[in-house]
Amino acid sequence: MKSLNFAVIGGGFMGKAHSIALASFAMYAWPAPAMLNRELIVEANDQLAEESQVRFGYNRKSTSWMEAVEDPTIDVIDVLLPNSMHYDVVLAAVAAGKHVICEKPLALDSITARAMADAAEKAGVVNQVGFNWRLTPAVQLAKKLISEGAIGEIREFRGKWLGEFFNDPSVPLVWRFKKDQAGSGALGDIGSHVIDFAHFLVGDIEEVLAIQHTYVDKRPLLSGSGMGDVDVDDSTSFMLKFNSGATGYIDASWSAPGHKSDAGFEIRGSEGAISFTWERMSELQYYSGKDSSDRQGFRTILVGPPHPYGDLFWPVPGYQISYSDTKVIQLFDFAQAVTGQIARPQTTFRDGLKSTLVEEAVIASAKSNTWTSVESADAKRGK
Amino acid sequence: MKSLNFAVIGGGFMGKAHSIALASFAMYAWPAPAMLNRELIVEANDQLAEESQVRFGYNRKSTSWMEAVEDPTIDVIDVLLPNSMHYDVVLAAVAAGKHVICEKPLALDSITARAMADAAEKAGVVNQVGFNWRLTPAVQLAKKLISEGAIGEIREFRGKWLGEFFNDPSVPLVWRFKKDQAGSGALGDIGSHVIDFAHFLVGDIEEVLAIQHTYVDKRPLLSGSGMGDVDVDDSTSFMLKFNSGATGYIDASWSAPGHKSDAGFEIRGSEGAISFTWERMSELQYYSGKDSSDRQGFRTILVGPPHPYGDLFWPVPGYQISYSDTKVIQLFDFAQAVTGQIARPQTTFRDGLKSTLVEEAVIASAKSNTWTSVESADAKRGK
Amino acid sequence: MKSLNFAVIGGGFMGKAHSIALASFAMYAWPAPAMLNRELIVEANDQLAEESQVRFGYNRKSTSWMEAVEDPTIDVIDVLLPNSMHYDVVLAAVAAGKHVICEKPLALDSITARAMADAAEKAGVVNQVGFNWRLTPAVQLAKKLISEGAIGEIREFRGKWLGEFFNDPSVPLVWRFKKDQAGSGALGDIGSHVIDFAHFLVGDIEEVLAIQHTYVDKRPLLSGSGMGDVDVDDSTSFMLKFNSGATGYIDASWSAPGHKSDAGFEIRGSEGAISFTWERMSELQYYSGKDSSDRQGFRTILVGPPHPYGDLFWPVPGYQISYSDTKVIQLFDFAQAVTGQIARPQTTFRDGLKSTLVEEAVIASAKSNTWTSVESADAKRGK
Amino acid sequence: MKSLNFAVIGGGFMGKAHSIALASFAMYAWPAPAMLNRELIVEANDQLAEESQVRFGYNRKSTSWMEAVEDPTIDVIDVLLPNSMHYDVVLAAVAAGKHVICEKPLALDSITARAMADAAEKAGVVNQVGFNWRLTPAVQLAKKLISEGAIGEIREFRGKWLGEFFNDPSVPLVWRFKKDQAGSGALGDIGSHVIDFAHFLVGDIEEVLAIQHTYVDKRPLLSGSGMGDVDVDDSTSFMLKFNSGATGYIDASWSAPGHKSDAGFEIRGSEGAISFTWERMSELQYYSGKDSSDRQGFRTILVGPPHPYGDLFWPVPGYQISYSDTKVIQLFDFAQAVTGQIARPQTTFRDGLKSTLVEEAVIASAKSNTWTSVESADAKRGK
Repeated sequence: MKSLNFAVIGGGFMGKAHSIALASFAMYAWPAPAMLNRELIVEANDQLAEESQVRFGYNRKSTSWMEAVEDPTIDVIDVLLPNSMHYDVVLAAVAAGKHVICEKPLALDSITARAMADAAEKAGVVNQVGFNWRLTPAVQLAKKLISEGAIGEIREFRGKWLGEFFNDPSVPLVWRFKKDQAGSGALGDIGSHVIDFAHFLVGDIEEVLAIQHTYVDKRPLLSGSGMGDVDVDDSTSFMLKFNSGATGYIDASWSAPGHKSDAGFEIRGSEGAISFTWERMSELQYYSGKDSSDRQGFRTILVGPPHPYGDLFWPVPGYQISYSDTKVIQLFDFAQAVTGQIARPQTTFRDGLKSTLVEEAVIASAKSNTWTSVESADAKRGK
Repeated sequence: MKSLNFAVIGGGFMGKAHSIALASFAMYAWPAPAMLNRELIVEANDQLAEESQVRFGYNRKSTSWMEAVEDPTIDVIDVLLPNSMHYDVVLAAVAAGKHVICEKPLALDSITARAMADAAEKAGVVNQVGFNWRLTPAVQLAKKLISEGAIGEIREFRGKWLGEFFNDPSVPLVWRFKKDQAGSGALGDIGSHVIDFAHFLVGDIEEVLAIQHTYVDKRPLLSGSGMGDVDVDDSTSFMLKFNSGATGYIDASWSAPGHKSDAGFEIRGSEGAISFTWERMSELQYYSGKDSSDRQGFRTILVGPPHPYGDLFWPVPGYQISYSDTKVIQLFDFAQAVTGQIARPQTTFRDGLKSTLVEEAVIASAKSNTWTSVESADAKRGK
Repeated sequence: MKSLNFAVIGGGFMGKAHSIALASFAMYAWPAPAMLNRELIVEANDQLAEESQVRFGYNRKSTSWMEAVEDPTIDVIDVLLPNSMHYDVVLAAVAAGKHVICEKPLALDSITARAMADAAEKAGVVNQVGFNWRLTPAVQLAKKLISEGAIGEIREFRGKWLGEFFNDPSVPLVWRFKKDQAGSGALGDIGSHVIDFAHFLVGDIEEVLAIQHTYVDKRPLLSGSGMGDVDVDDSTSFMLKFNSGATGYIDASWSAPGHKSDAGFEIRGSEGAISFTWERMSELQYYSGKDSSDRQGFRTILVGPPHPYGDLFWPVPGYQISYSDTKVIQLFDFAQAVTGQIARPQTTFRDGLKSTLVEEAVIASAKSNTWTSVESADAKRGK
Repeated sequence: MKSLNFAVIGGGFMGKAHSIALASFAMYAWPAPAMLNRELIVEANDQLAEESQVRFGYNRKSTSWMEAVEDPTIDVIDVLLPNSMHYDVVLAAVAAGKHVICEKPLALDSITARAMADAAEKAGVVNQVGFNWRLTPAVQLAKKLISEGAIGEIREFRGKWLGEFFNDPSVPLVWRFKKDQAGSGALGDIGSHVIDFAHFLVGDIEEVLAIQHTYVDKRPLLSGSGMGDVDVDDSTSFMLKFNSGATGYIDASWSAPGHKSDAGFEIRGSEGAISFTWERMSELQYYSGKDSSDRQGFRTILVGPPHPYGDLFWPVPGYQISYSDTKVIQLFDFAQAVTGQIARPQTTFRDGLKSTLVEEAVIASAKSNTWTSVESADAKRGK
């Protein structure tokens, strides 16, 4: 059986999620497309590296991502660093011929994102951006239903990612609230997943028109005294027009009381509708206009073995899968690409670029208050 | 006990709803602010008038609305005619010193709507437009909670009226699909109720930016042969900015499969949220950020006697009220205004004008693809 | 058009509900099977009779039910009195050849209930007991689906009526808490509707085994000083065996915090399931095991025109019907029987007797702690 | 940091779940009470052992559970075998002084279950039965709310485990359908979890009265030709009386169409109520009668860091945890007991015995059709 040695660059929340997914990968996906080894963990300093190695069960540890990139025994570089560091690591990894996974958002801007996508494609390495949310079985079922024509022609998309985790003004001024380190706020952090839902389920986006708000514009400095300015959005909402003629709306906020991880969508077709929210991640709502008139209604489908990727997990629908289980699916998709079972992962760097291009148009439109075109991910600006 | 003689102009769906509300009025509202008598029904021809008199239990019938307006025994003219006929009847009724109820949308355009509001106010008659949806107990509870500060400062409004009753392309080309008779399509027919929710719960709207679709652009002629053009919207969605600085989004469609009468809203404040849908009209969802951290969650409040207008109906929450029961509340509001218990109805002609002005801005913005200002309801155009 | 003169005996909550239904009857049911006239209201004293006549719009008033029974212009006696008075009025009405509607529970015990059913049947008058809850469109749709085999062979019934309206110990000792006036507590008051659901949707009940509780055993006397004993149940739950071999469970309580009017059921068949709660009265949940494996799920069906009796009300599903609207359906059923369009109402006195017989077996089983047979409604005791 | 070497006896569905939990344990629970090593996997034959070692990442493999029990480097024996084999392995493991985890149901009957509990307690080893369902954060939150008096005095328990995974008559006659190998059917397989909910949340059960059904009484033989008899229950429901005076009902079926993994409960107190279903495992419904009268309603609480064990998982409520994550909590509970941080696991062998004793009384009552006492778990039979 093929085996892939992973170097995971960065710990924290994402390090936990990726490590759990790596450790449980073959337990779920069996027979596995490849065995995924937790070979090397890279952290910011010795103490963190030491702790992460023990906690997450890596064979080796390091404090130098360059060391990982240059290590000939490493097959895959998995980049979980803060957004502003993605570019350097990814470019080096690609140059070294490694397959690369990079967390989203891929880059701080589309110029670097495009460079990353171009480089990876030119090098011919498998490249994947961490849009795991679209990979959940319920969302994949939505795609399958749409592809089968179950809701007719797609007309309207309504997407959202609503949480309240940063509504509290006492949350300090971490890097996520600074544009130069994060690129944007709620838009890039969570809205990007909804943009990816839209790309996946409906298609390319042509134009956007946005409203952005910063509700908490000053936050306590991490140093412990004084306040600093927030220069990213707490809430971004925008209307959009797809190339197909369908239209949509996306609503992203990390300051929406009552919502916790309410990421989802409703898709309306000419003959039916589908809706989903992550807060009930094991469910898909599906309405068929073809049901007989006295028994039409949204169906609450509990996902399980009959559904896409559902056979990886538990034998009974509703047994529940977790956040990290969507990372298992992401790894499954990646491993299948590396072993040639599929042409490429569902979510490549180019998908990361596409999302970044939409985000840039969103920010521009919020400033100009006008419908703003989204640059194509396939051609450079001006061409 | 004071008594008011009603002349109801027009039958059909609305004639049914108003007649049921008039007949049950004092049975619910007791002691009643006034007894409401079904004195006169006016219909288009003798046969309809005869049938409506029997079915709906009126003392007299007529085929002339002018006769009703001139009849000195009539206290209230209740206008349920197609939109294009509202203006003439209302102006005559007001000139005759009658109190007037008029179904929404008040008029085909803001010029006539303003004239109607001005005339009624100048005449000093009680005037009410039929925005009954905001009068449901759950929506009134939403207003009460907001007024009490239960969700903090209002930040965002998300409203909708989604149905599928005209998704079927075999529905013939009735007047609702013609701009010259209906003014607009889904926007005025159902979106107007959502605009009224926004006015009621958040405040005045400053600017809008809209997308409109006509999904079924040809329909069978009523004559039975051939097809005719639809020139109104099946679906209208728009972003909006309130004077207060809050922002919003409204989504109205009569071609949204799966939705039946899904009219509602979510309002997000700095410390909580409220949501409602007519499909579960006896429920309000309320989230308080002030609940202790381990027991926060949206509450499903079943409305009943402890809630606004709830004591008119049944002793047990959840016993359910109906569409026509919101018309009972509308009549209660109206009768209280006539008898001087309140200054004016909650939904006057000026509220009808306000909604029309928003609708005109929406249509203009969908054409120009730009943010479009909403004219003030208080000053004439050009001033 | 045929016309029926109603004498309504008793006001209060039920007087309100019946009067509203009578007043709106032909407005909903058009063309009406008969015009139902509010001819005579009978109340306990002059003042109440006077007030009820005005409020509910009756042609005449009286303080003597005997007068109503003897009045040759009256066609229907509608008995809304406290349970202990049903017998005398019904027997007299039947003897006078009147058609009779009687609120549930029909009688304090099965001996009197049987006498009432026997007398009415012998006299050949149309007789109806007020089991309106089974007449709601969603419940009638459940019956239709079952009859069409949509859920296969019926295996299990789970029914409930859960409220909290008497959980408060400060509610005074009204007649509903005294066995000699009410017969039983939650069992007869609300559990009887669930027994009727079971009879309607599954069939005859053979045996029961019950648990009963009185949680608040003393309540303030109506006189205002001191406490008196409650001698009826606050909560009754029981398992049951149907003649068909299906089994079930019924859970009735007026002291169940959180539940308001949570009356409903789940019915499980070999190939599907159906569930309903009055708190969402316009919805039926339906699951078909025949749906393809990747799109199975409970459907939320919003009732409307395509469903039984749905065409009486509003053109759009989800427009909501109310408690009193189920009384409209009850009157429709009754009027169709009087005019010979159907053989008899769905809920005759014999159905009232059947429910009473189950209740008696329930009470006996709670005392003996054993499975207890339900006496047949068709044969006299001991035969 | 303390380290525990696990020998896992048996693979299959439970081997997968336990291995995933062991592999991710310290990743979630950090700092970990102990490092849990996947030291040895025991399977039925060489091929399975080989495959399981690779798939699940164990250091060593074996085909002899006795070898594991006798191995001095092993600290914990984790028994995942078919029910009929639990007794021998557990007794040997306890005799060898190992800490033991055993999947439920602990034993085929209470005599062996009691012997296992007695032996483990006498040996002073940490012993745990796999009632992981009660360990989910939402259920633990229910316990916390009850303990804090949030719903007042407990009156009624309604529990269920409803699935449809064996409704299909083509499922072959595996050991779960044979009494001599499984003990019972749905009762022991899934009903046991509900009995454990009842024990955990309300207390000891005194008496039961049950109905049992076998809907599919013949199934295809595994050999591939012919049919064999099922001699266990597909569906068991029973009423119960707790020692405290509270009463209840439990409904367990693996042949309930529409339900997938609908395991849960409602608990009604004098001042509130709580309900839960595994199908929405991240949610708890909580109603407080102490909320002010106009804003009472069931709250949908999404569990996360503020809730019991919630801090082990993800930073945002609603990010979802999975079936195997409840096994992580089970291991956390176990490891804390081994390291002396808590006195014993929440679910010891004695809890397994208690459940078995209830199941035996249930089966006896279904045969005798009478209320049947549950034997005490603390005293031996006949004493």
